[in-house]
Amino acid sequence: MIEGASGWMVGRTHHFPLRVYYADTDAGGVVYHATYLAFAERARTEMLRLAGRDQIQLLKDHGLVFAVRNLEADYRRPARLDDLLCIRSHVSHVGGASLHVSQSIWRGDEELVGLAIRLVCMRLDGRAVRIPAEMRHELQDFLSEKAD
Amino acid sequence: MIEGASGWMVGRTHHFPLRVYYADTDAGGVVYHATYLAFAERARTEMLRLAGRDQIQLLKDHGLVFAVRNLEADYRRPARLDDLLCIRSHVSHVGGASLHVSQSIWRGDEELVGLAIRLVCMRLDGRAVRIPAEMRHELQDFLSEKAD
Amino acid sequence: MIEGASGWMVGRTHHFPLRVYYADTDAGGVVYHATYLAFAERARTEMLRLAGRDQIQLLKDHGLVFAVRNLEADYRRPARLDDLLCIRSHVSHVGGASLHVSQSIWRGDEELVGLAIRLVCMRLDGRAVRIPAEMRHELQDFLSEKAD
Amino acid sequence: MIEGASGWMVGRTHHFPLRVYYADTDAGGVVYHATYLAFAERARTEMLRLAGRDQIQLLKDHGLVFAVRNLEADYRRPARLDDLLCIRSHVSHVGGASLHVSQSIWRGDEELVGLAIRLVCMRLDGRAVRIPAEMRHELQDFLSEKAD
Repeated sequence: MIEGASGWMVGRTHHFPLRVYYADTDAGGVVYHATYLAFAERARTEMLRLAGRDQIQLLKDHGLVFAVRNLEADYRRPARLDDLLCIRSHVSHVGGASLHVSQSIWRGDEELVGLAIRLVCMRLDGRAVRIPAEMRHELQDFLSEKAD
Repeated sequence: MIEGASGWMVGRTHHFPLRVYYADTDAGGVVYHATYLAFAERARTEMLRLAGRDQIQLLKDHGLVFAVRNLEADYRRPARLDDLLCIRSHVSHVGGASLHVSQSIWRGDEELVGLAIRLVCMRLDGRAVRIPAEMRHELQDFLSEKAD
Repeated sequence: MIEGASGWMVGRTHHFPLRVYYADTDAGGVVYHATYLAFAERARTEMLRLAGRDQIQLLKDHGLVFAVRNLEADYRRPARLDDLLCIRSHVSHVGGASLHVSQSIWRGDEELVGLAIRLVCMRLDGRAVRIPAEMRHELQDFLSEKAD
Repeated sequence: MIEGASGWMVGRTHHFPLRVYYADTDAGGVVYHATYLAFAERARTEMLRLAGRDQIQLLKDHGLVFAVRNLEADYRRPARLDDLLCIRSHVSHVGGASLHVSQSIWRGDEELVGLAIRLVCMRLDGRAVRIPAEMRHELQDFLSEKAD
């Protein structure tokens, strides 16, 4: 279960299952639009964990966080209470200090939400810094390795 | 994984694993105190699902919800980013219109938070009603069955 | 205070003040990125209220909601615990079934976050419908009136 | 407005007005039960600010936070979308390291939720410490002064 909770890779795409609870919904009867961003954070975290890095290690060992710098969200269909969703995440680019992740949220074979996220590696004081070389290599190795 | 996501029973106690993400934390570096209540909602929902009832079915078939009527929370130790927690839930009483649930949140063998929750079965207009007989029997059967 | 809580107009731009509390922050010591979207919802609601329409009236009288269909967010600088922010909102377009709102979040004269939001008018079943004519006229009158 | 946003005192009771937005509600059509705790945090923060102390100052100058140690919540009636609520807060006890606050959430003259909160003064590492003497005196002066 603990392993399963991190999701799984299909080629270069990370899949992360997730259930909708009352806390995630609003009085319109659907998932609140900002909540999908928190769902997406869970999926990105687990994708990075599968790539060999957890965020707490990055924070403790290097004093670094990946912060969201830009995002675009396209809400196509609403998710509802008790839906079982799957978040698909794909690293589209690893830059010097940034990471681009494409994410989409599915209910069965219906795509509900599309997200494009650009993260920057930064210190807690907010200054952007280069992703540690070792980590960048791990990410790149991980990505190409999984593509085969 | 989907099954696993519902947790598992140990005797009469439901166990539900859960990871802490940035969304769950606050600037004190720990899980925000209200967030534990949302964690506990997830666990109760999955316990009821294992007992054969999901909330969406209760809502759609009967127009009923279980709403929190009272709660007590005892915050002993804080959970932190990336912690893997386990929520233990136990139905302590099934009344005519109410359900008492004891819950505790653990990190390994440390108890972090204790919760006592009283839920009432109500219509969406807020009027308390008796738990449907069939469901009350299922809950009672489920509870005693699991105790053996 | 009740009036004040709705913010004020400066030309065509609505200004809405807002304080940052622990609930809004994360373990990075800053406001959680999804929380800004909830801040922006508060500001849009109060702008519409000043324009003569509240959302509950739209929901009760017409069975309609304005749902977020797309958004872009640009996170420039982080907000922190106890910051007093101001959200500036501007309706950039009123379409048949949609409303485009530009929003920005400021701390003093620093712009922290920029948001471009496209909302659609929809029934609770998710079907997009035309904004009621009366409301569209009110919005347009309100916009041009405030510009003088 | 900024002043107004901090609420006002009526005798020893702090009053804090607050609007309900979609972000605060759930698919049951009412305010999500955990959200009231975040509402109550806002009110406590503003009460302390009126007493001459803000939390960020406590955090920066002394490395201290007030963390919730226990709470009891009694949910009598639900709040709904767009309701204008008022939170009444009253410090019932100032101990060596703890602060007891009674809070209730009202819609007009209907009491919706009652809360009893015990906070402890602690370092960020979680160790409880005495409330700085100066601050304890301020709180006590503030309380008795307002009672007249």
